[in-house]
Amino acid sequence: MGTRLTPEQQQQVAAQRGESRPTRRATVPALEEILFEPLAVLDHGFIRVIDYMGDDGAIVQAARVSYGRGTKKTSEDRGLINYLMRHRHTTPFEMCEIKYHVKLPIFVARQWIRHRTANVNEYSARYSILDNEFYLPAPEHMAAQATTNRQGRGEPLSGAAAASVLDLLRKEAERAYHSYAELLNEDMEGSPRDPTRPGLARELARMNLSLNFYTEWYWKTDLHNLLHFLELRADPHAQYEIRAYAEVMLGTLERWVPMTYAAFLDYRKNAALISAKGLAVIRRLIAGEKVEQADSGLSPREWRELMALLAKPEAR
Amino acid sequence: MGTRLTPEQQQQVAAQRGESRPTRRATVPALEEILFEPLAVLDHGFIRVIDYMGDDGAIVQAARVSYGRGTKKTSEDRGLINYLMRHRHTTPFEMCEIKYHVKLPIFVARQWIRHRTANVNEYSARYSILDNEFYLPAPEHMAAQATTNRQGRGEPLSGAAAASVLDLLRKEAERAYHSYAELLNEDMEGSPRDPTRPGLARELARMNLSLNFYTEWYWKTDLHNLLHFLELRADPHAQYEIRAYAEVMLGTLERWVPMTYAAFLDYRKNAALISAKGLAVIRRLIAGEKVEQADSGLSPREWRELMALLAKPEAR
Amino acid sequence: MGTRLTPEQQQQVAAQRGESRPTRRATVPALEEILFEPLAVLDHGFIRVIDYMGDDGAIVQAARVSYGRGTKKTSEDRGLINYLMRHRHTTPFEMCEIKYHVKLPIFVARQWIRHRTANVNEYSARYSILDNEFYLPAPEHMAAQATTNRQGRGEPLSGAAAASVLDLLRKEAERAYHSYAELLNEDMEGSPRDPTRPGLARELARMNLSLNFYTEWYWKTDLHNLLHFLELRADPHAQYEIRAYAEVMLGTLERWVPMTYAAFLDYRKNAALISAKGLAVIRRLIAGEKVEQADSGLSPREWRELMALLAKPEAR
Amino acid sequence: MGTRLTPEQQQQVAAQRGESRPTRRATVPALEEILFEPLAVLDHGFIRVIDYMGDDGAIVQAARVSYGRGTKKTSEDRGLINYLMRHRHTTPFEMCEIKYHVKLPIFVARQWIRHRTANVNEYSARYSILDNEFYLPAPEHMAAQATTNRQGRGEPLSGAAAASVLDLLRKEAERAYHSYAELLNEDMEGSPRDPTRPGLARELARMNLSLNFYTEWYWKTDLHNLLHFLELRADPHAQYEIRAYAEVMLGTLERWVPMTYAAFLDYRKNAALISAKGLAVIRRLIAGEKVEQADSGLSPREWRELMALLAKPEAR
Repeated sequence: MGTRLTPEQQQQVAAQRGESRPTRRATVPALEEILFEPLAVLDHGFIRVIDYMGDDGAIVQAARVSYGRGTKKTSEDRGLINYLMRHRHTTPFEMCEIKYHVKLPIFVARQWIRHRTANVNEYSARYSILDNEFYLPAPEHMAAQATTNRQGRGEPLSGAAAASVLDLLRKEAERAYHSYAELLNEDMEGSPRDPTRPGLARELARMNLSLNFYTEWYWKTDLHNLLHFLELRADPHAQYEIRAYAEVMLGTLERWVPMTYAAFLDYRKNAALISAKGLAVIRRLIAGEKVEQADSGLSPREWRELMALLAKPEAR
Repeated sequence: MGTRLTPEQQQQVAAQRGESRPTRRATVPALEEILFEPLAVLDHGFIRVIDYMGDDGAIVQAARVSYGRGTKKTSEDRGLINYLMRHRHTTPFEMCEIKYHVKLPIFVARQWIRHRTANVNEYSARYSILDNEFYLPAPEHMAAQATTNRQGRGEPLSGAAAASVLDLLRKEAERAYHSYAELLNEDMEGSPRDPTRPGLARELARMNLSLNFYTEWYWKTDLHNLLHFLELRADPHAQYEIRAYAEVMLGTLERWVPMTYAAFLDYRKNAALISAKGLAVIRRLIAGEKVEQADSGLSPREWRELMALLAKPEAR
Repeated sequence: MGTRLTPEQQQQVAAQRGESRPTRRATVPALEEILFEPLAVLDHGFIRVIDYMGDDGAIVQAARVSYGRGTKKTSEDRGLINYLMRHRHTTPFEMCEIKYHVKLPIFVARQWIRHRTANVNEYSARYSILDNEFYLPAPEHMAAQATTNRQGRGEPLSGAAAASVLDLLRKEAERAYHSYAELLNEDMEGSPRDPTRPGLARELARMNLSLNFYTEWYWKTDLHNLLHFLELRADPHAQYEIRAYAEVMLGTLERWVPMTYAAFLDYRKNAALISAKGLAVIRRLIAGEKVEQADSGLSPREWRELMALLAKPEAR
Repeated sequence: MGTRLTPEQQQQVAAQRGESRPTRRATVPALEEILFEPLAVLDHGFIRVIDYMGDDGAIVQAARVSYGRGTKKTSEDRGLINYLMRHRHTTPFEMCEIKYHVKLPIFVARQWIRHRTANVNEYSARYSILDNEFYLPAPEHMAAQATTNRQGRGEPLSGAAAASVLDLLRKEAERAYHSYAELLNEDMEGSPRDPTRPGLARELARMNLSLNFYTEWYWKTDLHNLLHFLELRADPHAQYEIRAYAEVMLGTLERWVPMTYAAFLDYRKNAALISAKGLAVIRRLIAGEKVEQADSGLSPREWRELMALLAKPEAR
């Protein structure tokens, strides 16, 4: 993973990982283990856990407004966390907080930022110069427009078609960066590369970069809002590129708050919201009645979705 | 209803209701009809719709980022609203806004204010003097502590017990207000009632009032957050007193955005979130298998809740 | 202005502008006048006011939690609004709401979206195909990197340099769009342009577009948060391109809530926050003392900023 | 301080304070020192710091989106923090988080909760029984209504008047609790005290308690929002009782992030926002001109406030 960082960055990460200090706060050894390490996502991106506050016990503590650590027996804590998740008592989950450093393509950042209840500090292309790093989809993720769904991908492109798309995307990104550098007319020290002409202000030059260039940010959120993010973004309906990040974050969630993670899978991620009309259909089916879409009260699309849900034996 | 207002207040409301101006904005005649009118809640409270922005069409317009009114055919609009509600595409619902004037007991206000994504201006007991109005439950709402549930009410009290509770609550509230007035030592014009002694600052004297005294506020929220409020507060698990407000608000919702209201009932209020384990049980039941709690993977409580849900034929 | 819209869009706007309905709500004729009309910003962008809730009177009404319109005499209303603004009593300003339709370059949208307390629905390039419209700075806004400030622009480029930059930006954007279209391989009806090869999914093809392409959104905010947005974005430190939008919005603010607008100019936009050390310097200067940076307690930069502020006689 | 806790609570706090674990995260020894300890506020209240995330260095790290700890030299870090505070670059301050456990009178909680950008878990009087603890002002804080200001306190009451107020408040609170207990009709184990009659549900009985009874909550916020809270609540215009909490929190701020604390005092807490008209007056005064209210453009009240500000040599 470290290969995604420059040697200097690797050194900085290693320095932080080498430090250890005593604290009276709750700690989570499984999360400490990966602290600061870049977890690879896509071709040049990463997720790094930078800091965290609280653990499963902190949720219990807040729910009980207790004076001590809040935990009684593990089984009682688990029961309480399940109860809170099931009944959407969300405020105790807000008592935990996590901070990530993320490197991600701009078009992914544009989807991500729509989650407003988080704190963000992004690398500024007004102040600084962006690196020459852009996202190119792996061939297996290059797909045609879905035909059944106006949003989303259909079949993967054939090898030749994918190669041709890839080639075009790469050439265009390289050209965009080349022109960006020419517009800036700055070397690494900020001196003009070509002293016979002025450079363009950074805040303007960046407009020539395309949406697959990478940006970086610090992103901090509470656990409740993280779960909401993951429910939407680790979902098959989410665009693959943001889902790739959400799935790595799911792994950090499991390390951090394992009881909450398990409850989240059962009561949120793999649960289903069934409409009043859908419940009526289910009741009839259980009673052994034969139900058809036409007399179900459901639209054809809702009917298909419900039938798919009731058919699937595997975890979604 | 008007009897909940002083004659002066009634006059002010009537004056506003009597005005009419032309606008190019979307209007909703069914909501205009009740604008400014106090809708009675509990013994002295009310809800008044003061202003609104948008209608069902505004949701469609925002979802399509369109240049015109956004509506095509009614059936298409309804289909889109159903789709948005079903798939939790919440941002178009944020494009509508409503403002209420609410008179409510302080202990209800304390629950209500936990919904943070709203705008609030409350009558200030630092500046002004509260009226001598307090909530007393109707006999049928006076109930013993629930025994099956640490939160909530059980059986209603018998007539005699209810009368005795009522009597105690009334006497205590009257005494609290009497002492509040004595501490203030102010008449209606702010002059001392007893000029031989000073009054206590309003911000201090109010601490003597009990939590059933009425306060008032202007409360403004977008439609998405209103639906969230109603989902939680028009629910049988909510305390009766806040539910009484939520139910009156449901009526204003139906007038304002009837398509959204219908979708909300089907996909949210009367829908159910079924856990992954619950779905597995349902699949087995539909397949005709006999399932018992012990081999269901559900806790006894979850099992009871699921069985109750699958049994009930009536609207919840 | 209408020339920024297609004929069909112009027709939709005209249709809405031609409608008029009666309402009991507060209306603002000066704002109604421009409702739905595109106000031009940059080369292809615009701001359209789509809807609003409340007026200056609604602020007064909420501050007083009153039953009537809330206004007494104009002078009293003005005094109260000034008082609220001066003492940062912000909640009454949250009682007004406005909704805009905005067309803006993606790099401007990226700055704008950082204001989290607003509601947004953006045109989706996952579902739909973006138009071939991109921002090119006017020559007078093409500037070199500032040398005194790592963020921002310095001197405008000379005519020849500007022309050369413009030429490069235009060619690159045209090429980016051409390739985008080729990747999509769709005609206006969504049929393949070249039926011998598949198109790339829209959600992927868009990554080839550069940050100066235009996007659109519905953006809705309350008045308090709008003022905060304008304070930051109609400021000389803001990037010119977003400031161009903020300045047009200032004009809509003046039409909508003229008293609030005047108070905002005096107490916020043209006001200055002076640090404790800066106040001490001012006290010494008024006392006729001669103060130098070295004995001021201020850093050289703070000193320069304070001296500039005290020197300027003109409105900032 | 420990005397504000029951022996069992003291033991729980001591147990947590006795624990120490290694962490790779940033730690702040000065804050660790007081972690979990109740800091006394008012007669029965307290503030306890329960957890924290980040330190001054984390602000620097986020502002630079850096890979390492973010700090260079102390003087550079201080300079950057001052710069961020002065120019209201608020997002880096959002990267630190703190969690408090607070015991406070209900009327203080009602003011406090208006700060919406925090996470809260309050002790529930629907589930649990409140303790017999209520706030009584110390004699020096018992004051008459201010005459110059409709909000706030004027002169302290004389000894006799204060004693009489105190006596009334105490008797009323004692009576309210006595009736609350009678309504509940529960002993410590939840069994009826008087088995011949039912108790009233907890969610109803609590309405008899007055606003000076103590409640408790866990309250978590980011540093930016904490500063905003402290700016408003550690201010002379805030009601004394909430200010008492804010002042203790200022002490925890100084321990936690000393550079931010210093910058906050200079650029926020002890700074002043001067209106455009006020700046014009200051410019004339510095130029040696004699200015009077009548020709200042300021209202009499603004004039008084400005003159007071320019006169005062001491820290506010």
